[in-house]
This record gives sequence, C-alpha cells and structure tokens, in this order.
Amino acid sequence: MIQMNSDMRIGESSWSDMLLEPALAAQRSEIAAGAAVYEPGTPAQHVYFIQSGQIREYQAGPDDTARLLEILGPAEWFGVGALGASGTYSTRAVAISPTTVWAVPVERLMGLFAQQPKTAALFIRQLAGKIQAAREDASRLVFDDCGSRLIKTLLHFSSTAAATPQENGVIMLRITHRQLAQAVGAARETVSLALTQLRQQNLLRTGRNRLLFHPDALRDFAVRPRVATPRREKIA
Amino acid sequence: MIQMNSDMRIGESSWSDMLLEPALAAQRSEIAAGAAVYEPGTPAQHVYFIQSGQIREYQAGPDDTARLLEILGPAEWFGVGALGASGTYSTRAVAISPTTVWAVPVERLMGLFAQQPKTAALFIRQLAGKIQAAREDASRLVFDDCGSRLIKTLLHFSSTAAATPQENGVIMLRITHRQLAQAVGAARETVSLALTQLRQQNLLRTGRNRLLFHPDALRDFAVRPRVATPRREKIA
Repeated sequence: MIQMNSDMRIGESSWSDMLLEPALAAQRSEIAAGAAVYEPGTPAQHVYFIQSGQIREYQAGPDDTARLLEILGPAEWFGVGALGASGTYSTRAVAISPTTVWAVPVERLMGLFAQQPKTAALFIRQLAGKIQAAREDASRLVFDDCGSRLIKTLLHFSSTAAATPQENGVIMLRITHRQLAQAVGAARETVSLALTQLRQQNLLRTGRNRLLFHPDALRDFAVRPRVATPRREKIA
Repeated sequence: MIQMNSDMRIGESSWSDMLLEPALAAQRSEIAAGAAVYEPGTPAQHVYFIQSGQIREYQAGPDDTARLLEILGPAEWFGVGALGASGTYSTRAVAISPTTVWAVPVERLMGLFAQQPKTAALFIRQLAGKIQAAREDASRLVFDDCGSRLIKTLLHFSSTAAATPQENGVIMLRITHRQLAQAVGAARETVSLALTQLRQQNLLRTGRNRLLFHPDALRDFAVRPRVATPRREKIA
C-alpha cells in the first residue's frame, strides 16, 4: 500500500485505491537508486505515482549543468510532460534511493477523471499549485540574492522526502552542495560559502552529504533585518 | 462572440459556447485600459476568460518592482490563483486596452468539468503547458545571459496579443523598455542597451512604446555562433 498523507485522500477514494482500478492499467516498477525514470526527449505517455522511495526532477542546462526542480516522495506524482502537447518529457526524473513507482497511461488517467470528477478537481488544484510554485521559483531568481534563495530552498526542502526529522525539531536534509546549488540557481562555490556563513552563526551543521538545521531558527534569521547583500541586477 | 482560435475549440463545444451555459453563472465585465482585474491578496474565486482586449499578468517584487508573467488575448484565460489552495491571487492582472472578460466562479467551472470531461482534459493540458512555461522561464534566468533572454522574450511575445503583424513578416510589438525589462528579469538600462545593439545590427527598429522586428531574422541571429557574453553565475 502507498503510505498516504491524509490530505492526499481524494473524493471518496485515495491515490492508492485509484491505482488498483483495473481500467487504469497502472504498472508497478522498481527503480534502482541513481537510475532515471525518464530523460529529456523520452516519449511522454505516463504519469508516475510514487509508492515508496524518492524521486528528484531536474531540468537540463548547457554543458552538463542542471536545475533541481522538485524533490518528491511517497503519495506524490510526477511526469507533467505527459499531460502537455510536446509529446516528450523535458526533464530528468532520477530515483535517489530504491523507489517503487506506478506508471499510469495518461489517456487512462484522463478516462478515470471523466468518471471521478472529484479526483479531476484535486488534480487540477495540484497542477495550479505547481504553476504557482514554478512562478515563485522564477521570481526568487530575479528578486532575491543568493543567500535568501538558499534559506528559502532549505526551508522548502525541509518538508520534502529529502528531510528526516531529528530530536528537538531539527531536520536532517540529505543533499550535496552541488545539488543544493542546482536548486538555488547559483555556483556551488557560492552556495558552499553561504552555508559556511550560516554555520558560523550556529544556524546549521554540516555532515557528509547532509545538513542539519532548525527550520524555525532559519526562518527567524531570514526575516531579521540585516545589511542587504547586493541583488544580482536591479529591476527597472 | 469570442474570437476563437480553432485550437481553442474543446470537446464538442468551445469556450464561447461554454460561457453561455446558465449553470456556469459567467458574468461579463468591461475593464478600462490600465485597470486591474485583481491584485495580489484579492480573494480568488473566479477564473477569467478574455473575450476581447488584452490582459498582462504581473508578479510583485520588492520596492515596487514587478515581473511580467504573461501577455494574454482573446480566447485565453487567467486567474490560476482561484484554482490553488491559497484562497487569494498572488499576481496582478491589468487590462492594457479596453478589455471584455467573463468571470466564472471556480466551483461552477469544476462542476462543468464533471459534466464535460473533454473540457476538463483540455484544461488540464493547458495547466500542464503553463507549468512547463514557468519552469523554462526560471531556467532561462539561471542558464541564459540577458541578451539571449531578451531575444527569447521578443520571440515569445511575437505570438501574443501584444503583437500586430506588419508587411513582409515583420511584427510590431507594443511594449515599453520597462515592461520588457520586467519580462526579461533585468534592469531597464541593461535591456535598453541590448536593444540598441540589436538595432545597430539591423535586427530591430524602435518607436514610441513599440518595437518592430522580423521573428525569423531574430531567431537566426540567436542560433548563430558568436562570442559568448558571460553568464551571471556559473552553475556547479
């Protein structure tokens, strides 16, 4: 069974019940850690639901660079490219740990929505949420300096599948400096320097491929007035 | 009647037929040039369909700055905030010329989708397209220099309601340098300088609040190899 957050229950049923509908023709598969579910250019015919494990979605840039778009875990879905008009995925979806996903043919999903309007309505709300998240992401790149973006990214990731709660409200985030830089949209060196500054202020501890911090403390720090670092470009 | 692109026809009906459904309770209103349909924080209960005129959607930044998200015209819709969970719009939607819109209560729209699965499926495809557009927007801010972003923005806007076709494939775009800077995510001075460089290469003519260019010539120029301007930050 899919581990379900209560807010993932939809209409009368849930994603996990939904995936068992024979008409949906959902196929379960096991993805090894480090393997890609799809790459940019892969024909896009399926939307994927995560049963267990973790998927990270990347957008490719020039010269082997990439932008980390989303960290997804159980009961979340990915593969928005299958819903669009292009016919291919434009991103890379990679399993971070051994991951079990259900592949649902997009035409079957649309067919299910025709019979379950409440499921369709929930799905539409989730799509709308993804639009707003992507737009806010872009705005941060325009309006915020790298340090602010780093803190917002850490806070955002603290509620994803990459985070493990520790004692006293501390969160352990499994992420490398490189991956964090790919999410923040900055050079790895810049992000490493900003992390060092947070560590010197006792707001963060670092370990091998992991960061430990208290989200509330980081949030307080982010709103505290301080000398502004210059924005990358002033907006007219 | 709404001026309809043929690809806006949905299922058996079209947006314009749909808006006449009494169950939808769509309300028509006239928006004066320069007036806002909603502001960030306005309670979000309606999705809006444009019958005629032009709407530009902005995301607010600090200190009266803003980012131009979309330029929309007849048969397009806006108000994605009403579909999300926040309960308010997060953007500003402004009429550029006298504009006629239909306001559809979001609950009624969801009700219609329950009865017209093909309409729901088309709507889902359009939402997916908006997610991909917003993500590509953000990636351009990370990966492209200002000059490349300017050209991509001009090309994108050449197929929106802000563009008027002229003779010989030339497009006239009604936009100020400030608005263009808000779309590109750069300082107005930077964008004005880049426009001057395009003008010196005979790729662009400028007038009062308007730009004239040949999209194909601009597209050719964009793919031509040349000395790269440095990216704002290298990505690890």
